[in-house]
Amino acid sequence: MKRIAILGSTGSIGRSTLSVAEAYPDRFEIVALAAGSKVDAAFEQACRWHPRVISLAAEADADALRLRLKKEGLSQIEVVHGAAGTVRVATHLGVDFVVSAIVGVAGLEATYEAVRAGKIVGLANKECLVAAGELITAEARRQGKPLLPIDSEHNAVHQCLRGGRMEEVERIWLTASGGPFLNTPRSDFASITVEQALNHPTWKMGQRITIDSATLMNKGFEVIEACRLFHMPPGKVEVLVHPQSTIHSMVEFVDGSILAQFSVTDMRLPILYALTYPERIPSDMRFPVGDLRHLDFCPPDMNKFPCLRLAYEAAEAGGAKTVALNAADEVAVAAFLAGAVRFDEIPTIIEDVLSRTNSVELGSIKQVLEADAEARRYAEQRLLERKRVVRPRATSFA
Amino acid sequence: MKRIAILGSTGSIGRSTLSVAEAYPDRFEIVALAAGSKVDAAFEQACRWHPRVISLAAEADADALRLRLKKEGLSQIEVVHGAAGTVRVATHLGVDFVVSAIVGVAGLEATYEAVRAGKIVGLANKECLVAAGELITAEARRQGKPLLPIDSEHNAVHQCLRGGRMEEVERIWLTASGGPFLNTPRSDFASITVEQALNHPTWKMGQRITIDSATLMNKGFEVIEACRLFHMPPGKVEVLVHPQSTIHSMVEFVDGSILAQFSVTDMRLPILYALTYPERIPSDMRFPVGDLRHLDFCPPDMNKFPCLRLAYEAAEAGGAKTVALNAADEVAVAAFLAGAVRFDEIPTIIEDVLSRTNSVELGSIKQVLEADAEARRYAEQRLLERKRVVRPRATSFA
Repeated sequence: MKRIAILGSTGSIGRSTLSVAEAYPDRFEIVALAAGSKVDAAFEQACRWHPRVISLAAEADADALRLRLKKEGLSQIEVVHGAAGTVRVATHLGVDFVVSAIVGVAGLEATYEAVRAGKIVGLANKECLVAAGELITAEARRQGKPLLPIDSEHNAVHQCLRGGRMEEVERIWLTASGGPFLNTPRSDFASITVEQALNHPTWKMGQRITIDSATLMNKGFEVIEACRLFHMPPGKVEVLVHPQSTIHSMVEFVDGSILAQFSVTDMRLPILYALTYPERIPSDMRFPVGDLRHLDFCPPDMNKFPCLRLAYEAAEAGGAKTVALNAADEVAVAAFLAGAVRFDEIPTIIEDVLSRTNSVELGSIKQVLEADAEARRYAEQRLLERKRVVRPRATSFA
Repeated sequence: MKRIAILGSTGSIGRSTLSVAEAYPDRFEIVALAAGSKVDAAFEQACRWHPRVISLAAEADADALRLRLKKEGLSQIEVVHGAAGTVRVATHLGVDFVVSAIVGVAGLEATYEAVRAGKIVGLANKECLVAAGELITAEARRQGKPLLPIDSEHNAVHQCLRGGRMEEVERIWLTASGGPFLNTPRSDFASITVEQALNHPTWKMGQRITIDSATLMNKGFEVIEACRLFHMPPGKVEVLVHPQSTIHSMVEFVDGSILAQFSVTDMRLPILYALTYPERIPSDMRFPVGDLRHLDFCPPDMNKFPCLRLAYEAAEAGGAKTVALNAADEVAVAAFLAGAVRFDEIPTIIEDVLSRTNSVELGSIKQVLEADAEARRYAEQRLLERKRVVRPRATSFA
């Protein structure tokens, strides 16, 4: 029986994790949950799973939840709140495996503390590796515990890496759907609307990650994550556009063999893989291999998608640069979603912030959070200075 | 330093093995060679590699070679001959690794003896698994030594299997180029010429294997080999047509993940893999992953290619049936190459022989060879009874 904590239990990955736990009641026990502000969803999860502890973001919400659980006769469930509450969930003594799925830098501290407490961590939070990857991977190595990626690309890489030893890896190939603008001419990028950018061809995801997929910044983040998770220099992590997103990623070995992983596009599969690693257990998530017909590939166009180039540059510099990359991107994407900047201005804003960021090493999560806040402040200030709102033309192309 | 014996050193796999050894002089020592009747080639190999022992098929050839080597001042090289000579090469005390690459049943006994002598065996000979797979794999298990496949498909499977444990494998997917008649209508099969059938789209190989690729019998043999090598029932080994032959094969795991292997189509790669397993060492055989554009797949058509169906039936029956399958195919293909039967008669002849073969278990290599001879005799007799020579029309289609 594996005893599980979920950081971000009411989000998409959190709910998928619970659905995996539901399918294998003899294997997984849900011990601790950290939700955000969705009190009703948290209440339902507590009633269904009877965790030993549950955390909400706000104290008032925690108080309300405690009362409702008491009425249900579930007063034995400890209700906590805030950053300390999330850390309590992440480091609970009764937990073996922590699913880190809180979006944004909010998940950093608790994830780091989970690793420090010797938990096996399944990583679905991008910032853990993009902003604090050096710290978190170093701590995992110290603890001798694996960091297991819960996203289709790095999970695929993790699987392919089993085909050899780390020193036998020549290169990692991350596949990218290419996003909705793969075949859109660069000259039309200025007029891309929010609606168009939110229309991702293969995955249904949150707004920011969908925009990040359209700019290829998401793939850039994944390059950085792969560098940190698998201890590879950025020059050995390449991106290959693969519109069907069937092959999730590949590993090229020094002898010239390449292993590729594919499966249905269902997040429950990498979750199940991480939860059961090094075992594999039967699932109903079958890819119809016999129905395979065509797979297409092409190289990414860094001129059309400068965000990918910026991510490689930040990956090379490391430290505060990748923190700034993430922070600036979050601010720029929010501005795009609000109609305050054009689609093609997203990389411009990020490049501006990066150019003002010194590539210092960050020795603690606190320093990471400070660097993050500083980059955000600077990005927002630059946006204000522009003093203009550019609304994309809504129907510029079909 | 790995000390190597090659059974079939002057053939294509033998020469590729020597070229691998040439590229890594610090890793591999050529200790023993078994050639067939190519005395000049054997002489050159002996002069270049100074093996401790070399074997030829005929006694007269061995005598001649001994004389020539003496003149070169290489009289320390022991020259032997015949089946006993091949066994001597395969079981030489100074050998760690035996490359089994003699074509046909001639390689069976020596390969079996190599396994019995506790050598690690790299298998390139199809008959070892198709005709004597049960015996040879059982002996390898007894010895606790790996049997390492040296052909692109099973080598790919071997690599993909590293992604999990054997009991976690749901299915093996062997890819098939589909041969030159993938898109030829069934109605044209009667008029396929030898020249057309010898024109394989992706691999340059010997005549019999090229015809076997055109009938898909080669893939059928590979299904049987996979069953024996990886201890899978025929129902769990599937074939997927993949005209580019880029992906060499795939393994589907119980959790729904599929691993696929690809590389350049160069036999030196599986040879290197087998020779260095469980290590991987750097090679110059790089697949240009970034140039990947399109991969196509479709299911095999068992009505158009009855040989594949016959192979599955023989695999289910096991024992003497797979021996007969191989023997009957060899006779039928030779008859087709000689213009004695039509392309579409190849499966008819094989099916006829199979229907007369009892599915008895074979307990020794001797019994395998007897069953092989009997099936051959019967197949040849049936061909004679036909008392007719059908010459395919040479220009029936472009």
